[in-house]
Amino acid sequence: MTRDVGLGQGFPPRTIAIVGVSRSEHMYHPGYTGSRLFRILRESEFQGRIYPVNPKADVIDGVKAYPSVTSVPEPLDFVIIGVPAAAVPQVLEDCIAAGALNVQILSSGFGETGEAEGKRLEKRIREIALRGGLRVIGPNCMGFHIPSIRMKMFEEVELVQGPVAFLSQSGGHARIYLLHGPHRGIGFSKVISYGNALMMDATDFLEYLATDPETRIICMYLEGMKDGERFAKLVRQLNPTKPVVIWKGGLTYSGARAASSHTGSLAGDRQIWDAFFEQTGAIRVDSIEEMAEVTMALLRLKPSPGKRVAVLGAGGGDSVATGDICAEEGLEMPAISPQTRAGLLEFVSLVNQGVMNPLDIPMVFAELSTLQRTFELLAADPLIDIIILHMSAEFFPKIWGHRMAEFRECILNVTQKGGKPIVLAVTDESKTDEPETYVRELVGAGIPAYTTLRGACRALRRFADYHEFVAEGGT
Amino acid sequence: MTRDVGLGQGFPPRTIAIVGVSRSEHMYHPGYTGSRLFRILRESEFQGRIYPVNPKADVIDGVKAYPSVTSVPEPLDFVIIGVPAAAVPQVLEDCIAAGALNVQILSSGFGETGEAEGKRLEKRIREIALRGGLRVIGPNCMGFHIPSIRMKMFEEVELVQGPVAFLSQSGGHARIYLLHGPHRGIGFSKVISYGNALMMDATDFLEYLATDPETRIICMYLEGMKDGERFAKLVRQLNPTKPVVIWKGGLTYSGARAASSHTGSLAGDRQIWDAFFEQTGAIRVDSIEEMAEVTMALLRLKPSPGKRVAVLGAGGGDSVATGDICAEEGLEMPAISPQTRAGLLEFVSLVNQGVMNPLDIPMVFAELSTLQRTFELLAADPLIDIIILHMSAEFFPKIWGHRMAEFRECILNVTQKGGKPIVLAVTDESKTDEPETYVRELVGAGIPAYTTLRGACRALRRFADYHEFVAEGGT
Repeated sequence: MTRDVGLGQGFPPRTIAIVGVSRSEHMYHPGYTGSRLFRILRESEFQGRIYPVNPKADVIDGVKAYPSVTSVPEPLDFVIIGVPAAAVPQVLEDCIAAGALNVQILSSGFGETGEAEGKRLEKRIREIALRGGLRVIGPNCMGFHIPSIRMKMFEEVELVQGPVAFLSQSGGHARIYLLHGPHRGIGFSKVISYGNALMMDATDFLEYLATDPETRIICMYLEGMKDGERFAKLVRQLNPTKPVVIWKGGLTYSGARAASSHTGSLAGDRQIWDAFFEQTGAIRVDSIEEMAEVTMALLRLKPSPGKRVAVLGAGGGDSVATGDICAEEGLEMPAISPQTRAGLLEFVSLVNQGVMNPLDIPMVFAELSTLQRTFELLAADPLIDIIILHMSAEFFPKIWGHRMAEFRECILNVTQKGGKPIVLAVTDESKTDEPETYVRELVGAGIPAYTTLRGACRALRRFADYHEFVAEGGT
Repeated sequence: MTRDVGLGQGFPPRTIAIVGVSRSEHMYHPGYTGSRLFRILRESEFQGRIYPVNPKADVIDGVKAYPSVTSVPEPLDFVIIGVPAAAVPQVLEDCIAAGALNVQILSSGFGETGEAEGKRLEKRIREIALRGGLRVIGPNCMGFHIPSIRMKMFEEVELVQGPVAFLSQSGGHARIYLLHGPHRGIGFSKVISYGNALMMDATDFLEYLATDPETRIICMYLEGMKDGERFAKLVRQLNPTKPVVIWKGGLTYSGARAASSHTGSLAGDRQIWDAFFEQTGAIRVDSIEEMAEVTMALLRLKPSPGKRVAVLGAGGGDSVATGDICAEEGLEMPAISPQTRAGLLEFVSLVNQGVMNPLDIPMVFAELSTLQRTFELLAADPLIDIIILHMSAEFFPKIWGHRMAEFRECILNVTQKGGKPIVLAVTDESKTDEPETYVRELVGAGIPAYTTLRGACRALRRFADYHEFVAEGGT
């Protein structure tokens, strides 16, 4: 069984063969082919050696090509197979002969087609792999993205190193997270797209990540799961020290049908997954955006199970929406303490302002010193755990845009002294301004920031639930 | 009672007095004051006469000023009162003396403060208004936005005329809808911000809109409701011919507390409002964005209770998410009929494509003729009611950006022939591209388009629920 052999040996890879690289003149097909991965690895300056394999070519893109993996002159840590499905079994035999252990099958046309031929091929692959002790990743997958060795799976993603691992049955979702994550201050240790999970499943990769010193937070996109018990046990064990964030796709009838034709997965039962999340304390999300939102909180905020939020906001009808959104997303919005109220009334007039929670104090947007004083009072309030500053994107450039450094200092001053998190929600319901730019700027300056208040509240609730679960010893 | 007198007489206004307009040199305060509304109405070229009232000025901004509403030389359709709360009762007495009926109290400082003085003033206003038969709008409100007479309440909103009315207890939400709506093809008949609803409540305005020939769709943002039974009866009666879309704010504890300090409203009970929506068939939304999303569907799509959707999408993990989102939002995603499948297989190869639902046919993004043929087959499928084309914003400019006219023709060809709606969802989870621009372009070209798949599905479900309710005679 592959389970007896961890991913550890030969991983991360230093020597890679890519089987199925066309000669230069034909290599720029659309779709992800061996040729394309070869080019991507070369362009990203992969920190190791790459051997193109093609029996009909001597040189590809200026690199010496080999007729087979068996003819490559040094031991191979990793083989990427991009030949058509029917030709894959022979390449696997070659891998065994060459002593290569870790193999990615990039090609599709297997179990996910639902056709007898694809299933027959998968069966054969399994037999060969078990006989030769190969660790097969895929088929129908994009493989590895590992910034520390400049290995990537898509042209357009950045190599941003960090403590977040992502295991994904979907290459497309991996791409989305790799594009979106860096704008939320998220860097990656290892991203693994593993498609049909014929041999190596999430649990196998998780075992590796459990002891990977580079990985502190583990995110996953799952469609199927072959050994649920072993997986649940490992997640439960790992989650208190390395938070596990999971998007489980395909739990509706329509979603499950799509999953079966995407990775040939049986998507499983909603009740079973509900129980899984309850028992393991893993953080449940429903999109890559939500995954990034809670990961940002895990990366930036001091652990705390507190859910009592004070929102400093825009006033008017927005205050009502703020109250509703916080409550709907499971945060509490208590009245501030009498001391805090008294402290605020020393410098806040009640004419067209309000010190209820949400607080409506437009003055804070005019004077940084007023903002800081307000933050300090809220941070000292024993009834408050988290502070959210909610503002409209249309006012951001006018108010803080030109003095980001001071604004940042004001926030860091308070968070470092008080220890309570301050989170920004820069939103725009009118769709006239784009919060994304400002949120990136804030995140870049080290301030946790969200583009919707609902997203902020949702992430903070999940963050607090996680720390509550861990604090209670997972019961 | 004001209820005996509709809004009709003197509305829309042709003569307006604004009480509390400062002399020019002092008139540019922040905040919404009489001076600011005076300037806004002048700049928008209001199609009527405006009289500034100020006992200390002869001329304001080149316009003759009057010491009191009683000294204005012609009958007044409408008086806007912007003086401090304590001075409002005397102005109301003047309005009675001048024979003015419709009065907006812009000023705040009444019931919403929670203070005894504010409540006492409200009581006095009520007594005066009842005695003089005044129709009082507000206090603490922005009043009217009526494009047909070039009357507006905010500088930065456009005057876009159309069949949508909006009644809002929040001026801020009115502003958001006025900014956002036009980008979704939504023009307005009358927008009324009515704040504390001391005398005239939603029901009173609704009575006017019931017979307003300019209004075909009625949207509302409500915090409180004074005569629930009369309101429910009217909504139920009106909804089948003029769809009623309602955002009810403040149904959580925190939201209700905020509503009480925003407009002094008692926000009411969730169960009661659940029953209200069930009995009236009014369309329930939870934000201005959701309001605009369903209003666009009401404006653009042929009435139909059908919820069976075919999604032509991006494939891969996205197909799974698509299936899940459709199901979660209450749409059905049936397998397409054998005839449609056979028709598609005449020109669609199954290599890396799929004709399951969601359909994964990248070819349609390369060839407009393929797209049209696919649309035609789906439009003819008796198992399908709605077609959604789901694509990523990052590909939009490359694929359709340069041939919008042809793309538009392709879609209109199919919808006009088949009668089934085609809706676009141009989305971007990676946050690298901005769907908003493309969605505006599509909406401008007459194609219903959404920036999230969830938003599209949610709007289509509500649209279908509405037509189902109406078709079943509201039972």
